[in-house]
Amino acid sequence: MAPTIPKEQWAQVIEKTGGPVDYKKIPVPTPASDEVLVNIKFSGVCHTDLHALNGDWPLPTKLPLVGGHEGAGVVVSRGELVKDVEIGDHVGVKWLNGSCLSCEFCQQSDEPLCPKPLLSGYTVDGTFQEYCIAKAAHVARIPKEVPLDAIAPVLCAGITVYKGLKESGVKPGQWVAIVGAGGGLGSLAQQYARAMGLRVIGIDTGDAKKKMCLEQLGSEAFVDFATSKNLVKDVQAATPDGLGPHAVILVAVNEKPFQQAAEYVRPRGTVVCIGLPAGAYLRAPVFESVIKMITIKGSYVGNRKDSAEAIEFFARGLIKAPFQVVGLSELQMVYDKMQKGEIAGRYVLDTSK
Amino acid sequence: MAPTIPKEQWAQVIEKTGGPVDYKKIPVPTPASDEVLVNIKFSGVCHTDLHALNGDWPLPTKLPLVGGHEGAGVVVSRGELVKDVEIGDHVGVKWLNGSCLSCEFCQQSDEPLCPKPLLSGYTVDGTFQEYCIAKAAHVARIPKEVPLDAIAPVLCAGITVYKGLKESGVKPGQWVAIVGAGGGLGSLAQQYARAMGLRVIGIDTGDAKKKMCLEQLGSEAFVDFATSKNLVKDVQAATPDGLGPHAVILVAVNEKPFQQAAEYVRPRGTVVCIGLPAGAYLRAPVFESVIKMITIKGSYVGNRKDSAEAIEFFARGLIKAPFQVVGLSELQMVYDKMQKGEIAGRYVLDTSK
Amino acid sequence: MAPTIPKEQWAQVIEKTGGPVDYKKIPVPTPASDEVLVNIKFSGVCHTDLHALNGDWPLPTKLPLVGGHEGAGVVVSRGELVKDVEIGDHVGVKWLNGSCLSCEFCQQSDEPLCPKPLLSGYTVDGTFQEYCIAKAAHVARIPKEVPLDAIAPVLCAGITVYKGLKESGVKPGQWVAIVGAGGGLGSLAQQYARAMGLRVIGIDTGDAKKKMCLEQLGSEAFVDFATSKNLVKDVQAATPDGLGPHAVILVAVNEKPFQQAAEYVRPRGTVVCIGLPAGAYLRAPVFESVIKMITIKGSYVGNRKDSAEAIEFFARGLIKAPFQVVGLSELQMVYDKMQKGEIAGRYVLDTSK
Amino acid sequence: MAPTIPKEQWAQVIEKTGGPVDYKKIPVPTPASDEVLVNIKFSGVCHTDLHALNGDWPLPTKLPLVGGHEGAGVVVSRGELVKDVEIGDHVGVKWLNGSCLSCEFCQQSDEPLCPKPLLSGYTVDGTFQEYCIAKAAHVARIPKEVPLDAIAPVLCAGITVYKGLKESGVKPGQWVAIVGAGGGLGSLAQQYARAMGLRVIGIDTGDAKKKMCLEQLGSEAFVDFATSKNLVKDVQAATPDGLGPHAVILVAVNEKPFQQAAEYVRPRGTVVCIGLPAGAYLRAPVFESVIKMITIKGSYVGNRKDSAEAIEFFARGLIKAPFQVVGLSELQMVYDKMQKGEIAGRYVLDTSK
Ligand SMILES: [Zn+2]
Ligand SMILES: [Zn+2]
Ligand SMILES: [Zn+2]
Ligand SMILES: [Zn+2]
Ligand SMILES: [Zn+2]
Ligand SMILES: [Zn+2]
Ligand SMILES: [Zn+2]
Ligand SMILES: [Zn+2]
Repeated sequence: MAPTIPKEQWAQVIEKTGGPVDYKKIPVPTPASDEVLVNIKFSGVCHTDLHALNGDWPLPTKLPLVGGHEGAGVVVSRGELVKDVEIGDHVGVKWLNGSCLSCEFCQQSDEPLCPKPLLSGYTVDGTFQEYCIAKAAHVARIPKEVPLDAIAPVLCAGITVYKGLKESGVKPGQWVAIVGAGGGLGSLAQQYARAMGLRVIGIDTGDAKKKMCLEQLGSEAFVDFATSKNLVKDVQAATPDGLGPHAVILVAVNEKPFQQAAEYVRPRGTVVCIGLPAGAYLRAPVFESVIKMITIKGSYVGNRKDSAEAIEFFARGLIKAPFQVVGLSELQMVYDKMQKGEIAGRYVLDTSK
Repeated sequence: MAPTIPKEQWAQVIEKTGGPVDYKKIPVPTPASDEVLVNIKFSGVCHTDLHALNGDWPLPTKLPLVGGHEGAGVVVSRGELVKDVEIGDHVGVKWLNGSCLSCEFCQQSDEPLCPKPLLSGYTVDGTFQEYCIAKAAHVARIPKEVPLDAIAPVLCAGITVYKGLKESGVKPGQWVAIVGAGGGLGSLAQQYARAMGLRVIGIDTGDAKKKMCLEQLGSEAFVDFATSKNLVKDVQAATPDGLGPHAVILVAVNEKPFQQAAEYVRPRGTVVCIGLPAGAYLRAPVFESVIKMITIKGSYVGNRKDSAEAIEFFARGLIKAPFQVVGLSELQMVYDKMQKGEIAGRYVLDTSK
Repeated sequence: MAPTIPKEQWAQVIEKTGGPVDYKKIPVPTPASDEVLVNIKFSGVCHTDLHALNGDWPLPTKLPLVGGHEGAGVVVSRGELVKDVEIGDHVGVKWLNGSCLSCEFCQQSDEPLCPKPLLSGYTVDGTFQEYCIAKAAHVARIPKEVPLDAIAPVLCAGITVYKGLKESGVKPGQWVAIVGAGGGLGSLAQQYARAMGLRVIGIDTGDAKKKMCLEQLGSEAFVDFATSKNLVKDVQAATPDGLGPHAVILVAVNEKPFQQAAEYVRPRGTVVCIGLPAGAYLRAPVFESVIKMITIKGSYVGNRKDSAEAIEFFARGLIKAPFQVVGLSELQMVYDKMQKGEIAGRYVLDTSK
Repeated sequence: MAPTIPKEQWAQVIEKTGGPVDYKKIPVPTPASDEVLVNIKFSGVCHTDLHALNGDWPLPTKLPLVGGHEGAGVVVSRGELVKDVEIGDHVGVKWLNGSCLSCEFCQQSDEPLCPKPLLSGYTVDGTFQEYCIAKAAHVARIPKEVPLDAIAPVLCAGITVYKGLKESGVKPGQWVAIVGAGGGLGSLAQQYARAMGLRVIGIDTGDAKKKMCLEQLGSEAFVDFATSKNLVKDVQAATPDGLGPHAVILVAVNEKPFQQAAEYVRPRGTVVCIGLPAGAYLRAPVFESVIKMITIKGSYVGNRKDSAEAIEFFARGLIKAPFQVVGLSELQMVYDKMQKGEIAGRYVLDTSK
């Protein structure tokens, strides 16, 4: 029996750049022939959502806008072309809501590089509403035994760090340094790295983070960037042969950590930048980069296959991502805290409240 | 019949950093058990030799020093462990005179990254002499039909650009931009790229270079960086779909060309830096690098296999490298011209004069 | 102005397995929302079409069936979801008429492995008619300067051999042996190999084929399998170091040529099987395969990106594929010749006759 | 202080093909300039040693011969060229005792494919003696905390299965089937696969092996080839999506298991053959291999880097290899049991007894 779909729904709407966000009733949309309508149960709140609200990225948003791109829910309706997604399936709506599927990049499994992307909560309405549209070919499949609140943040942060680790080219048994290991992305990165058979050096600061990295998140070594007298040497010394990690994942790129990474990474190693700080620059000395043959790479979000793999690691119980649930109606409060830098873990919105 | 080896030979010797270079008689050395003695017939002169003379790189040189690392000659003697190189074989002595062959890097065919390298004309005596020592496992094999004067510059410049092209990961039919296309490295890079089935955009300045690139060296498009109103757009427009080249080879890295390369390279593309300008920095915006998932790589000299391949392309007649021959005794003159930036093509020294 | 589309059209229809094929008028179909209608101008005739007619493959065909999968034509109509293909665009309809675009294989650019493929002229009506339906995301883009009759056979044979060469992993400057070099697939394979910077050994029989391979198609060596006293040695001797080719492309797999290929391929080399002989087996000795670490691979048709690349090589004038044009009405004659093995080059049907 | 090296030592010597092996005193050899002398403490006994004794492989052995190629010991002397191995270092002597280090294959880290290999216990004297010679560049480094008896079998079997897993190309999170999972190679393969982040299907027969695979060795699924009604379906069903494992490792190749592997492996998957059964053949249907684009690969022994990695996994405590120690003097008894197929685990010889 097909689910009953209401005509109206609760949503959080940005009417103008800068906000505030408006919690109100809006119509439930109807999917086009290649789309599905997803009853979002839970949606994570991500820093990118704050950028969408503030309009401080080069790319303009749709307006009015329903934000959100980490939505987990249940398919309630589908267009007539859709054959592989069933009503009742659990799916995730991600940052990449849709892509053309036929450009050079889509043809090569690089759909995040599609020049005509649909971006959830940015160029199309996102997951901060009860019923959200997504392209059927792009929704992530979520096994039914996986809790929809817990998986929500994995749909953005988890996939992104997993992609970064894949892009690094590190192989099982090799070492990876995670810069910003104690944060949200960093703690996910450590766990994915471990699940992939990698050995991890956590780089962050403070005894609490050190303890967490070493005892819970799988790091075999920890370097405190604030107290280290010689960060480059300390990171290299953390690998048995002293040559440094095979890859470095920078989850929060600033110039200094980046330069240091280029220095302590092993010859032939790779430095991967994740995250999108506006205005920041990579900077590395040519002489040393050439002599050591190092590679520097930007990694954006995962493609559909990366997403499926990242979800599978989570479904196997190998990844823990702490979160707290509040009602969709409380989104402004979450934005306010985020703006002040007061958020420790991840907030997940329950769209029924 | 074994060749007669004299006790003494003519050589160009640097007694102290800064020069001058001293043309005089010195003893002919004897190869150790894993070495060969090569009667150098011709040796190219390279910018690196000037750095060795001037001592302006971070790494100190041996002193007194016989410079030179582009030597082509004939094996006249060998140590008792040497089985694969025969007396009379034609071989090349390259920048990497020897390596440990057992470290992690040597084990992975990355012998240029060996932490204990022997560098010809830098940490060991090089090819600006009649008889030069080299590790047998490292000499390049030169087919006997190849002229030893013509091959000399290929042993450094040719191998280096070929390696850079390989490192770029571009595949036959794809586009590569060569920045500095009209110079020595650039003109070799274009020819190797063509021989590898690549399509080439030459970037340089002046009508003479444009003509040479398009008519002789194999570029299908040329962009003049001095007269272009919008270099990024012009380079991208040179590819049929306007997305830009799949890779960029920077043979002379400066900050501005580097930043531009990061801008015009195709999403998922690679920017390869060749050459070792002291004090220069790579610099690229994080946001765009991540969104486009671009890769930036340093490429040093080729390994032994790269060298063999680069020589084979040359031996097949696919690569032309203009040069002029002067006597070994005239090296100081070559250095003087190089210092003043007055060298157009490549100088090759005839050790018999 | 939109083109006028008739209600009826001429087509060649197979009513029952075994044929004959019936030249008659049938309705012009209407594209679904993600499809285009292509006015086929020319269509190649391929051995696979004969298998479809005879029903001698494990997979059953649609019935009644319009065969053909090498169609080149002009887009005359499109479904409402189609945004990237314009009316008037020149496109090719290939064997893979459509795929789900969302399964594991489609997600990884392996759409030919999609478990729900639409196969032109096999499970859906193909190109032996004036107006053919195809999924918009799957049609091949053909530049307008490329003649539609000449490109037709490239859409199947050309792409297939190009894919096989890519799958072989051979790199510019390396050697590839083409077994069956003088036939249709083989002659295309040689030309693609050359355009990719590879060196080619043609293997076939007869002086006419030898001459054609060496003088027109780009082989540097030719081995006649009928007159060679020791095929394995002769093929290995054709490479300068006597170690054999880095890859072998078998365009017509039989057991004996396959076993020989496994013997003469270079250690670490790859043997690629193209083509689908029913009932044939690969067979290779384990001991030698392990000791030499050889790879044996099956290669099916190209994906969309491979197709675009193969067409681009053709459009650049690097590939010549001889063909003769007859009317669509004469298809039965072509089948008859094919059945008797009397076809030398490729037949291309003009749908207007 | 340098260790005292005796003039004579105990060794097990094969005087003629077919044996018996003779336990007697022979001179202690002296290392050449690029060699080390290793005081072997423990040596594993491998099936290959039986082939060497029986002379039933195509390649003839040295005679008289000291067998053995899984020796772990202490360096007691070295040639004058050796700089990276110190007296007192713990090292392993492997099947590949030495290679030329300069051929095409050695240049590409494929030293096991060197056409001039020195094979321990086969073409040069091996590890069934107290003092064994090995090329310094080829000995495996063993950390001092690793027990020399336990590591001995890893030096052949462990490295070989690890190499096979690497060659398969499977990535963390993907599925690999191990055929012969309950045997010596198979049980190591499972553990390495787990340590590499892979998911494992064990294929073997019997409840004891099933229990061991699932409870101790890390398999997530087990298929009993003797009781399965449809092995192909059962193996495919063991993966969540029913498409079968991404790779299959065949540790004991016979025709039937091989054909089945080609059938149940996932499209685009890889079947890797390890082990050297004389006279066995690979056999797979062309049609299905092409349609599924599967890869079949032979994998020989690991190179030096693979060896170091495999030892590192073992040193981290991730791999358990059961063994029992007997005296070197008891080798004939071990051969006798092996000949009768009566060996369950691995025998390791203590050279001091
Ligand atoms: Zn996010
Ligand atoms: Zn796209
Ligand atoms: Zn140079
Ligand atoms: Zn080294
Ligand atoms: Zn065809
Ligand atoms: Zn599909
Ligand atoms: Zn063994
Ligand atoms: Zn070798």
